[in-house]
Amino acid sequence: MPIYKAPVEEALFLLEDVFAQDLGQHSQAFSGLTIDDMRAVLTQAARLGEDVLQPLNLPGDRQGCTRDADGNVTTPKGFKEAYKLYAQGGWIGLAADPTYGGQGLPYTLASIVNEYMGAANMAFTMYPGLTQSAIATISQHASEALKRLYLPRLISGEWCGTMNLTEPHCGTDLGLLKTKAVPREDGSYAITGQKIFISAGEHDLAENIVHLVLARIEGAPPGTAGISLFIAPKRLPDEDGAAGARNAISCGAIERKMGIHANATCVMNYDGATGFLIGAENHGLSAMFLMMNEARLGVANQGLAISEVAYQNAAAYAQTRLQGRALSGAKAPKSPADPIIVHADVRRMLLDISAFNQAARALLIWATLMADVAQRGEDAQERERASGIVSLLTPVLKGVLTDYGFANAVKAQQVFGGHGYIVDAGMEQFVRDARIAMIYEGANGVQALDLVGRKLQKDGGRALRNVLDDIRIFISENASNAALAPCLGPLEESLGRLKQATLWLMRNAPTKSDDAAAAAHDYMHLFGLVALAYMWARIARAALLRKARAPAPRMDAKLDLARYFMARILPETGAHLARIVSGAEVLTTLPDEAF
Amino acid sequence: MPIYKAPVEEALFLLEDVFAQDLGQHSQAFSGLTIDDMRAVLTQAARLGEDVLQPLNLPGDRQGCTRDADGNVTTPKGFKEAYKLYAQGGWIGLAADPTYGGQGLPYTLASIVNEYMGAANMAFTMYPGLTQSAIATISQHASEALKRLYLPRLISGEWCGTMNLTEPHCGTDLGLLKTKAVPREDGSYAITGQKIFISAGEHDLAENIVHLVLARIEGAPPGTAGISLFIAPKRLPDEDGAAGARNAISCGAIERKMGIHANATCVMNYDGATGFLIGAENHGLSAMFLMMNEARLGVANQGLAISEVAYQNAAAYAQTRLQGRALSGAKAPKSPADPIIVHADVRRMLLDISAFNQAARALLIWATLMADVAQRGEDAQERERASGIVSLLTPVLKGVLTDYGFANAVKAQQVFGGHGYIVDAGMEQFVRDARIAMIYEGANGVQALDLVGRKLQKDGGRALRNVLDDIRIFISENASNAALAPCLGPLEESLGRLKQATLWLMRNAPTKSDDAAAAAHDYMHLFGLVALAYMWARIARAALLRKARAPAPRMDAKLDLARYFMARILPETGAHLARIVSGAEVLTTLPDEAF
Repeated sequence: MPIYKAPVEEALFLLEDVFAQDLGQHSQAFSGLTIDDMRAVLTQAARLGEDVLQPLNLPGDRQGCTRDADGNVTTPKGFKEAYKLYAQGGWIGLAADPTYGGQGLPYTLASIVNEYMGAANMAFTMYPGLTQSAIATISQHASEALKRLYLPRLISGEWCGTMNLTEPHCGTDLGLLKTKAVPREDGSYAITGQKIFISAGEHDLAENIVHLVLARIEGAPPGTAGISLFIAPKRLPDEDGAAGARNAISCGAIERKMGIHANATCVMNYDGATGFLIGAENHGLSAMFLMMNEARLGVANQGLAISEVAYQNAAAYAQTRLQGRALSGAKAPKSPADPIIVHADVRRMLLDISAFNQAARALLIWATLMADVAQRGEDAQERERASGIVSLLTPVLKGVLTDYGFANAVKAQQVFGGHGYIVDAGMEQFVRDARIAMIYEGANGVQALDLVGRKLQKDGGRALRNVLDDIRIFISENASNAALAPCLGPLEESLGRLKQATLWLMRNAPTKSDDAAAAAHDYMHLFGLVALAYMWARIARAALLRKARAPAPRMDAKLDLARYFMARILPETGAHLARIVSGAEVLTTLPDEAF
Repeated sequence: MPIYKAPVEEALFLLEDVFAQDLGQHSQAFSGLTIDDMRAVLTQAARLGEDVLQPLNLPGDRQGCTRDADGNVTTPKGFKEAYKLYAQGGWIGLAADPTYGGQGLPYTLASIVNEYMGAANMAFTMYPGLTQSAIATISQHASEALKRLYLPRLISGEWCGTMNLTEPHCGTDLGLLKTKAVPREDGSYAITGQKIFISAGEHDLAENIVHLVLARIEGAPPGTAGISLFIAPKRLPDEDGAAGARNAISCGAIERKMGIHANATCVMNYDGATGFLIGAENHGLSAMFLMMNEARLGVANQGLAISEVAYQNAAAYAQTRLQGRALSGAKAPKSPADPIIVHADVRRMLLDISAFNQAARALLIWATLMADVAQRGEDAQERERASGIVSLLTPVLKGVLTDYGFANAVKAQQVFGGHGYIVDAGMEQFVRDARIAMIYEGANGVQALDLVGRKLQKDGGRALRNVLDDIRIFISENASNAALAPCLGPLEESLGRLKQATLWLMRNAPTKSDDAAAAAHDYMHLFGLVALAYMWARIARAALLRKARAPAPRMDAKLDLARYFMARILPETGAHLARIVSGAEVLTTLPDEAF
């Protein structure tokens, strides 16, 4: 059986030591919480994840969800009870508005909690996770009446939420969507169409499911300019607001898929279902995209979460599995063989993962801190600056953390040798589950295009300049700190590569439309690696300060990992740059029919 | 339903144009076969793979193998009939000795056939594949009496074979194995112990299963010096050599695993089973290792095979899935959207795979040609040279082709977006199936250690010098060919990196034992990429020669792919070199308990 221990002290170190300045400067955005307050919340979350959700992960994958002839869906054994604890603990509305029953805590904290829950049980956590997305969408775009009706029940977990975008013929290209909405006299709409790949589309965890649905109002323009957003509950609220009569929405099938078996991915059929418009007519897509930024950070978090739990299991296995001898002589001469952690190649795989995870967690916390500042900061200019940074970092985090999250799950599985291929070890589930994060909420290729095609240019490239300035200032402020030199040198070199790549894009992309697209994937990864290196430099500085106060083996380990990252992971930036500047021509010359 | 078309013309182009000189020079080793002979064989193989095996792949994965209470194992529907055709077609003994009923054709040809069969149905092809391994082992090491008894029935496919190495506590470190063999008065041995992860360990395809088993003869020394190899059939041959009484061998369980569900991976229990010694007492491991070289090339082939079939499906999907518009303007203005192959990032994924596959196929053919020369060449010196090269290339091919094979299956799945995550598309099966190839027949970390720890040094590094000389000579012979310059420049640069890495290893590894191990993974990949670039240079030269004779769009496409490889895949060599020369220290400083 796999293990999991939520890394609470890791998050607290980042909040207290690495991002102390940001927290202090924007304390209002963080509700004036102390580190002890945060420790209390995270420790409680850790307990729920470790004790309740994690033990259900492997059996839930095995059992999966089942649909009966009437379209009712049953989740795996234990999920209902776990969900009740999750909802009662207030975890769904941790960062939601207290006006509607939320706890009003920082999004940063909710995001850390989601790492633990996702690592413990990704398929389970998607149920409340989609409810959180629905809450965010309704909060931002719905009328006060709809908010009063739906938010309290979603925040309490009495009702769940979903997002209905994809149709059989359209995923990325939502402009093609066909689901139609016909206005009724009472102001509601009759929605008809088929949605696919709907996570948590139907299940038995809550008495009602609130679907947020994209559809085209009859007569609306074609393409993306004619899409509207609707709220369509499984059961229509009665006059008291309680779940009443069944709406004409049904689950047509549960998709058979590679992983996240315990989450019901549904085909949803709308047969003249009653829906209520959210926001303005034909502005559904922009409403959905605003919400999707938060959902994308949530998916990035899943990449980190699986990478972390996979790492913990691989490290534990490497400490106990006896096989072969250290090249430098037996390390456990009384045992029949040494634990495989003595082998350099096993350490390579573990260090690759660990050196990624700690920086990825820092980068995610940085981004969510910025999201909190953007929403709750005191100063308008600061809010705008923070909003630009989080918007720029979002596709990078989604694409890079899920690509590495998957690759790391594969590496962790490799540490187990043949045993990693066996279902009961749980490692192959991590690989299968992590795989979806590279695809949903915008496939990673779409993230890369969002970055180079939209986010880089926004406001004349201001957000990028702000991030690059941050890094540059950090380097120059710490230039005289010799203990930081092993980090700053490589960081500066990689920053130079990022600048070169950016200049190349600025010179070429405006005239050659394919150049930006051809460079997008590598640019996103180059950017991500530089950002992670920057996080390691900040972590290293904080670790040195802690060490200066008292000896701290945990801080020594961080300095070792920082050096590992610089020596072994950051060199990839050179290959990314070489690919970027090779241009689009090698991608476009081959005729389509020659593929 | 996934598709598959065996790339027969690809192999013939490589044999006829790229390796024409090798074939001509060593024609005896290739039984004097003409290209037309080879085409006839490959076309027949293609038909079996495409028409019979491929349609069983997806259903076979879904159905899996089942074991009844008595330990009998049933393979998926259709496997028995397919196996009969496979055996009757003479495919199992294609390269086996005619004395025992084999067809005596070159191993090169058998290997190409195995690519097609593996691409069509990897789980199925493992059954005859393991029989081929058993045939090779018995041919090389068994007594004439055992050969006469077992080889004809294995070659005809009446009986199947398996390899029994792994035990619960030992995989890589076979020195720990506990299965014991007690000599009996009649010269046979009583074998007792448990083996796990035994592919094709028990099934219903053949009337008998011949297990090759590693065990320790009572009183033998501990460790690897006390391991012997035995033949232990499921049914003991009677006096006519027919399958007779049941031996004390049983399948205790079928492992539940990530993929290759249609192949029965068994726990095998030996309860005083009758076995017959093969080769000398206590020399079982070296016998097994000789055989494993061939098996490792077979696994490398699986990496290529899955990469190829995954590519074909992704390319077909990209040609027909409509989503979004080309950045340079609509390419299919009459359709609601353009096919996704217009998008640079989709082309990137497809080209990454295709540019790998063609060079990987060439490298595998080069290695198997060398294996044929090593076994059947006229000249002793040539045989020895060829043997050194194939022995050096084997771990590189196994490690690199399976790492990329898996990564490419993941990329091909990504082209499908959300649909790639759905079971019925078949793409996720390719990912799950390809995953095992990185693990079995020696995990890829073990291949890397085999390369840097053993193969590089062998005979004073002669094989490496021979390969590097080949590349150097090719570069200088073609230096004046301007049309080849786009290949030769990058090839030479990457060759320089390989030399730097090799020099670094020679300087550091002898004194610092961890340096070689810490560099092993990256060195293997650096070597592999240089070898693949060399293949592309040879392919490009051959393509130019063909084009000079007549216009050939297929050859133009090869030149495009060669340039893509150089621009987009080969730059990775820089990152590998940087990691290698960073040394072992960053891997060893972190204390074990800090993981």
